[in-house]
Amino acid sequence: MNFEITILGCNSAIPTSNRNPSAQILNIFERFFLIDCGEGTQTQLRKYKFRIQKINHIFISHLHGDHYFGLIGLLSTLHLLGRKDTLHLYANADLKEIINIQLKASDTRLNYELRFHDLQYDKPRVIYEDKLITVETIPLNHRIPCCGFLFREKPKERTIIKEKLEAFDIPLSFYANIKAGADYRNDEGELIANKLLTKDPLPSRSYAYCSDTSYFENIINQISNVDLLYHEATFMQNMSDRAKQTFHSTTIEAGTIAKKASVKKLIIGHYSSRYTVLEPLLDETMSVFENTELGQEGKSYTIV
Amino acid sequence: MNFEITILGCNSAIPTSNRNPSAQILNIFERFFLIDCGEGTQTQLRKYKFRIQKINHIFISHLHGDHYFGLIGLLSTLHLLGRKDTLHLYANADLKEIINIQLKASDTRLNYELRFHDLQYDKPRVIYEDKLITVETIPLNHRIPCCGFLFREKPKERTIIKEKLEAFDIPLSFYANIKAGADYRNDEGELIANKLLTKDPLPSRSYAYCSDTSYFENIINQISNVDLLYHEATFMQNMSDRAKQTFHSTTIEAGTIAKKASVKKLIIGHYSSRYTVLEPLLDETMSVFENTELGQEGKSYTIV
Repeated sequence: MNFEITILGCNSAIPTSNRNPSAQILNIFERFFLIDCGEGTQTQLRKYKFRIQKINHIFISHLHGDHYFGLIGLLSTLHLLGRKDTLHLYANADLKEIINIQLKASDTRLNYELRFHDLQYDKPRVIYEDKLITVETIPLNHRIPCCGFLFREKPKERTIIKEKLEAFDIPLSFYANIKAGADYRNDEGELIANKLLTKDPLPSRSYAYCSDTSYFENIINQISNVDLLYHEATFMQNMSDRAKQTFHSTTIEAGTIAKKASVKKLIIGHYSSRYTVLEPLLDETMSVFENTELGQEGKSYTIV
Repeated sequence: MNFEITILGCNSAIPTSNRNPSAQILNIFERFFLIDCGEGTQTQLRKYKFRIQKINHIFISHLHGDHYFGLIGLLSTLHLLGRKDTLHLYANADLKEIINIQLKASDTRLNYELRFHDLQYDKPRVIYEDKLITVETIPLNHRIPCCGFLFREKPKERTIIKEKLEAFDIPLSFYANIKAGADYRNDEGELIANKLLTKDPLPSRSYAYCSDTSYFENIINQISNVDLLYHEATFMQNMSDRAKQTFHSTTIEAGTIAKKASVKKLIIGHYSSRYTVLEPLLDETMSVFENTELGQEGKSYTIV
């Protein structure tokens, strides 16, 4: 089953001719979650062959333009293409007015429901949940209210060993309990331990999106051991003063967070437009945390 | 002296992977005027090597998103790049609030003055004037208040024939009057007619931008004899019902307006995304008005 993130843009505030502002799309079991939506996101989605009507949930980290100026265009296009399904939007409460005032100016009444979910930034909160996954906010430290998002599969059931269950002659009606971890008592009153009948469940996969933020140790506990962390690294370390002033992180800081949180893999992004070549940012991050990759537009990262 | 329009986008509401929404940049004597600003305009400006800080005047025809969703991103980028010069914005009064609410949400105070000029739609009005040109609104007929823009060089001075002035021994201090059309009376009281001393001025060039609008004969008088008319042709003629419903024009209608207004040349644009090949739109328009060209992204049209 898929658990794949595709980066649509990972530049910071000023787009360059070949780098777009923040947007990512996460495919978990063919559910599509859009994370941030900088200007041009709808074009990027088209370029990389995503079907935009399959997106039902959009998460906006904060209201700096490079994270949401593409949203109103995407919402309009969904409308013009005849969308009927409810679209859920998780964002700062102010975004509601920003969208509504623009719809009003164009005398547009969306032909689908846009359901707003106002974010709060005081502590991590579960903002989405279904049978398979949860999404939590990750409060970040930025110039304006901002949070990341933690996508996590729910604990899975144990995997039954079919031959064993057949050998012990266990009726099918008990299978669900056994998957859930129960032992089995047979007609002779003999207890057969669950661990003889099942294998450990597949691990629950997780992805944390952390942009924009200054170096912020408060997040370490929440994101510890995630399979994949996207963490902004707007600046090289020699610009750490600028990073502090603007509430952004450096390469070394991104790497340090990844290391302290013992994440399995780090992707960096949200690069300042001043960097035309990105490899030095990667090298510097890897000096702290080796399993790092450069975020790149159009590239997909699968968690297995 | 330049009088050149470059199309940055000429698709209608839904951008396609290779066609952008409305935006044009007009270069008149190295003054740069931006007309409409659909999503992605700042990227298009960069792609076609325009220096964005040279733009001092932006004209927005109406508040459908495909004509202005790229504006807030452009304004932000100008700010982030340190602009200080006043930027003039000619648009519907509602745009002020749309911009201000977004600046407020990101806690941004622009470091340049953004001066709003509210458009009115009741009749043609001169909204900009300098030594060399005027810009007038062209009230259009669309679903929401909308106007086009007519850029026109002011009448030029007559061209003096230097040898004649020297032959008649006319002092330099009279040259300005003679350029302005005055006759010359010499010391003997003899009148030398201006037409002996000057040639007719170079013609004043003009460009009319008309998008979005249904077929609207009211504009014909105002745009008559312009050198270049950009007129929307969203649909082929077989979709004239759809054109009427949506207050857009067909190819034949665009051609008819061009013909009735006796313009010198017509460019069509604002194509519906349903058309992947545009030549049939051109052919159909040319059946009414031969000197027509397809509007194409990145293409410049010079008025000589």
